[in-house]
Amino acid sequence: MIEDKNQQRTSLSDFGEFKLIDHLTSHFDISHTSTVKGIGDDAAVLDFKDKQIVVTTDFLVEGVHFDLSYMPLKHLGYKAVIVNLSDVFAMNANATQITVSVAVSNRFSLEALEELYAGIETAAKIYNIDVVGGDTTSSTSGLLISVTAIGEVEKEDVVYRNGAKPNDLLVVTGDLGGAYMGLQVLEREKQVFLVNPNSQPDMEPYAYIMERQLKPEARKDIVKLFKDLDVKPTSMIDVSDGLSSEIIHLCKQSNVGCDLYENKIPLDPTVITACEEFNIDSTTVALNGGEDYELLFTISQEDYNKIKANPNFSVIGYMTEPHVGMHLVTRAETKIPLKAQGWNALNNQE
Amino acid sequence: MIEDKNQQRTSLSDFGEFKLIDHLTSHFDISHTSTVKGIGDDAAVLDFKDKQIVVTTDFLVEGVHFDLSYMPLKHLGYKAVIVNLSDVFAMNANATQITVSVAVSNRFSLEALEELYAGIETAAKIYNIDVVGGDTTSSTSGLLISVTAIGEVEKEDVVYRNGAKPNDLLVVTGDLGGAYMGLQVLEREKQVFLVNPNSQPDMEPYAYIMERQLKPEARKDIVKLFKDLDVKPTSMIDVSDGLSSEIIHLCKQSNVGCDLYENKIPLDPTVITACEEFNIDSTTVALNGGEDYELLFTISQEDYNKIKANPNFSVIGYMTEPHVGMHLVTRAETKIPLKAQGWNALNNQE
Repeated sequence: MIEDKNQQRTSLSDFGEFKLIDHLTSHFDISHTSTVKGIGDDAAVLDFKDKQIVVTTDFLVEGVHFDLSYMPLKHLGYKAVIVNLSDVFAMNANATQITVSVAVSNRFSLEALEELYAGIETAAKIYNIDVVGGDTTSSTSGLLISVTAIGEVEKEDVVYRNGAKPNDLLVVTGDLGGAYMGLQVLEREKQVFLVNPNSQPDMEPYAYIMERQLKPEARKDIVKLFKDLDVKPTSMIDVSDGLSSEIIHLCKQSNVGCDLYENKIPLDPTVITACEEFNIDSTTVALNGGEDYELLFTISQEDYNKIKANPNFSVIGYMTEPHVGMHLVTRAETKIPLKAQGWNALNNQE
Repeated sequence: MIEDKNQQRTSLSDFGEFKLIDHLTSHFDISHTSTVKGIGDDAAVLDFKDKQIVVTTDFLVEGVHFDLSYMPLKHLGYKAVIVNLSDVFAMNANATQITVSVAVSNRFSLEALEELYAGIETAAKIYNIDVVGGDTTSSTSGLLISVTAIGEVEKEDVVYRNGAKPNDLLVVTGDLGGAYMGLQVLEREKQVFLVNPNSQPDMEPYAYIMERQLKPEARKDIVKLFKDLDVKPTSMIDVSDGLSSEIIHLCKQSNVGCDLYENKIPLDPTVITACEEFNIDSTTVALNGGEDYELLFTISQEDYNKIKANPNFSVIGYMTEPHVGMHLVTRAETKIPLKAQGWNALNNQE
């Protein structure tokens, strides 16, 4: 287990609750003028003047959302932040602050928590956000992380899930399915390791998809790109649970239907290779894999020229009248209904 | 166990993650104009115009912060909200929105979660706050609740922990030690029940202190009262971990010392009676008991006339120069150093 790797091990019970959060966050910088007061009082104080603020929260639970036998704690801290920032960017907003609450059982050492917070700090630095609050407490089993992210946005720039119109183009950033296939590789190597701890697998061919799983990024760049290109999506969501369920969210909330083209779904060559190796259909992986943290959005057709040359974007379909329904148009040009079979925290306790 | 009392039991795995949070919060009203968008998108959207906003977050963990064998789920939901609102009021701010994330193991039924959310809803209604976000996920063991509360305040009204000056009066609202003694009674009755499930104890004499433990209130009324009385405290904190550790927080962050008078500490008669019954010193309980969710603050002496007639307030001491240190002045007029021995989540896994 990752948390046992440390040479030095300081028991968490040597720290009081308050001293611990102070210790873990004392060197975190504050860089936003909107952060009036960060950690250290009953609450953070923020000042956004004329902007709207967005707030989002996510829970990561050991044994449900992550497995510490292949997820280094630093990566986990990083990912816990990214997952939340992705929701802020999906509102077309700029992420500015987060609060981080952590519950840990006493099998974790101080050094393990420091690793976790090092990952949180790295994400905060790279994405230029202030850590303004938090809470550390004990848990009876395992590690749980709850992050709340806050962002700011001009009122006229907010993009909701419910603004898509028939004939709008459906667009996704980056490529899909990588995080899921990275997880498959990691699960396989864990099993191999359990049987033969001395095996030295060559992970180089899987570097991209493993990074998609272990150290995902959130598409802050896209929010800026929309501004530069003068594009405002009509609806947007981040791809955390698989393309299929995210499309269904947009369609239901916007009251439209959709035609999604299988041959337009962006896949990295590594994903295709891994799918062949694992004998899984790559379209299924892209539709249901989840955790890619790309942005899925719709734009009106008039905006097509603004985005068509940009390698960040793939147009994967278009929205239809609601009575038409939601369909995948396969390579064989048959239409099959879209279903949400995405990762379901309450069904698959994997 | 409370969650097994329900006649009807719907498995949580019948619900997807999204449908579950929709189901649990669909009837929650939105009442604040600052709530532009609540649950249902990637993030809530809030608009506070010229006000400052405060953000605070707290984690409640089964087996650490609560015991479901005597804490009904509805009360727990209520208390999870109160704990966070108390932090908002301790900034002299008005609480306006919360997000609620819940992780549950599969031993909980849908009806159990509905009970929990009924408590959350009740608190939201009574305190007039909007529930604007959340997340439900599975846990590998027990129930965990993470609440983030948001409030608004005029810039000039924010009260931090660090503004106390020597000679300022130290004031506390309400009375102290009740929540801790309520817990002692509940723990005792749990033991009695385990031995003899048919015992019917008379809990009436303990009604007040049990309510202080099971259904605490946050002092929203005090924030309004400060406005009415034209008082702005120089520093403020809520009493969640015991009077002693909260005073130390104010002193350290304000760089002052303090004389706290034992004979001025407000105690309800029920607390005194229970302390005698349990053979515990009532001052120790008030100093270290915690969970009272009263407000502890300092005011300049000039403001004394504004508060002296008000039954909500007890002047319990005054701040001194920092080199004098922090002391309890006992009834016997000896001075003993104040120590933080409050409830410590990481030492006492009770």
